[in-house]
Amino acid sequence: MGEFELIRHYFAAAACARAGGDVVLGIGDDCALLAVPPAEQLAISTDSLVAGVHFPDPCDPYLLGQRALAVSASDLAGMGATPVGFTLALTLPTVDPDWLAEFARGLDAMAAACELRLIGGDTTRGPLSITMTVFGRVARGQALLRSGAQVGDLLCVGGELGNAAGALPLVLGERQVEADLAGPLLAHYWSPSPQFALGQALLGKATAALDISDGLLADCGHIAKASRRALEVNLAQVPVSPALQGFLGSEAARQAALIGGDDYVLAFTLPPAQLSSLRAAGVPVHVVGRVLDGEGVRLLDEQGQDITPQQRGYQHFRETP
Amino acid sequence: MGEFELIRHYFAAAACARAGGDVVLGIGDDCALLAVPPAEQLAISTDSLVAGVHFPDPCDPYLLGQRALAVSASDLAGMGATPVGFTLALTLPTVDPDWLAEFARGLDAMAAACELRLIGGDTTRGPLSITMTVFGRVARGQALLRSGAQVGDLLCVGGELGNAAGALPLVLGERQVEADLAGPLLAHYWSPSPQFALGQALLGKATAALDISDGLLADCGHIAKASRRALEVNLAQVPVSPALQGFLGSEAARQAALIGGDDYVLAFTLPPAQLSSLRAAGVPVHVVGRVLDGEGVRLLDEQGQDITPQQRGYQHFRETP
Repeated sequence: MGEFELIRHYFAAAACARAGGDVVLGIGDDCALLAVPPAEQLAISTDSLVAGVHFPDPCDPYLLGQRALAVSASDLAGMGATPVGFTLALTLPTVDPDWLAEFARGLDAMAAACELRLIGGDTTRGPLSITMTVFGRVARGQALLRSGAQVGDLLCVGGELGNAAGALPLVLGERQVEADLAGPLLAHYWSPSPQFALGQALLGKATAALDISDGLLADCGHIAKASRRALEVNLAQVPVSPALQGFLGSEAARQAALIGGDDYVLAFTLPPAQLSSLRAAGVPVHVVGRVLDGEGVRLLDEQGQDITPQQRGYQHFRETP
Repeated sequence: MGEFELIRHYFAAAACARAGGDVVLGIGDDCALLAVPPAEQLAISTDSLVAGVHFPDPCDPYLLGQRALAVSASDLAGMGATPVGFTLALTLPTVDPDWLAEFARGLDAMAAACELRLIGGDTTRGPLSITMTVFGRVARGQALLRSGAQVGDLLCVGGELGNAAGALPLVLGERQVEADLAGPLLAHYWSPSPQFALGQALLGKATAALDISDGLLADCGHIAKASRRALEVNLAQVPVSPALQGFLGSEAARQAALIGGDDYVLAFTLPPAQLSSLRAAGVPVHVVGRVLDGEGVRLLDEQGQDITPQQRGYQHFRETP
């Protein structure tokens, strides 16, 4: 089976029309063709997941398909973009029909949830890895960048942090706990929910935003650097789930929330005047700190003491799950 | 050094503004942002190159950088698109500064030649592989598809075929010949020239087109299938370089031209009335056959005998260099 046939056969569901009129031409020619309405721009992001580095090998191919797309698509949420489509470059050691069918089923489940359409791809032989490039559209000049944080803004996140990083011992099979405790944590790892609705609700309101993939402190560092401002995080305000606290204990749960990666929750800076209208609209906004003059990120404890850890967030080439 | 710093440091030249106003935002945020003029569409293609499968490992990183981008960009030429930018997902076993600097230098040389700007990327740890996603723009509704070949059209190619496939014994170090013979063949393998000018010249004229990556006969099969027509190839008309004939002998050179891959020369179907104006404009057009009613691809010898080989072109998972 050639590469087109492979993609067509297993990924037919994900390649079906789904996202509307933006995709002029999908899989099967030299290129896909996208139309972009005149008042909009196209947001583009690429991510690779490598077996044994970004996910355990072997693992459940259905869960892998879900997770791979969600991780990539989350970058669109961080810009406030509306999902359009994605390409899949899949490198496989062998063609295993059962594996491919399950991977494709998980991929399609996430593609349907995200309203993303598979528009092109490449299949090659080699060590298992997955590279996705995702496409979204956003009103011209409105995309949420990292560079706009202003002194006086609130620093906010879109949900509880640390669940995915905390779940790693479960993902790797190093620990086992009761299903009712493990289930929610594993779901955060294997099936993140990109915060598209939050990103879009922040358009025209947040001054800076990104999706947290490297850990809260490291990603706040990215906003601080791009915005040339300092960010202050109040440890007591960082939302941590009861499930994670129950699994790891309070101290390790906090560590996971601060420096663990793989959250795929948005962090953003918000003028205080925007807070009440967002909350009234039911948008999840957790204030965790503020923007100051200066540079870098400071972590404060309940007494206002600076307890900034030396550790940085997840960095490829430095540590791996 | 984090992934952003890695990309910024080594790939700064390739990320410089180069292609004009289409790139609103380049490397460094969650997504890149592209503007697409209202009368145009965005052409998108993804390709992976895996060490030991698509290129020898180890190999010269400068040449690899050149080749990886050219191979991906050629798909834009096959649609008649004008190059805009590309993303790079680079998976590396280790961070070797010398290797990265040379790879980036080769990549930038090809990016400059193609007028493509690096707009985003990801670096990960793992077995060496390279996935590029390339972006081009093309007038709305004008892209050269595979599906428009008409009965009576001429089947044409944009240059000599088989050089890259014929060069494989040299690439793999299995044979050695004098530099003046090896040089041009190796250049075809390591530094293909995507035929952007040809693709753009064919807009509104060719009825179908693609870039030959799987071998002439296999890729003609793609046009035949998409267009629901038969394609006839006259062996005597297939252009083969004297260098390739000198290196392989006539018979093996013909085989390389017909079923070898990696040409990255355009194949297209053309109404006969278009031929003279294209040639008068200096556009490289080699007529190698014609479009007929029916299906599939037929190869004819000098006497008009059907000598269609059973072999098909390069297929991943079936054979590798």
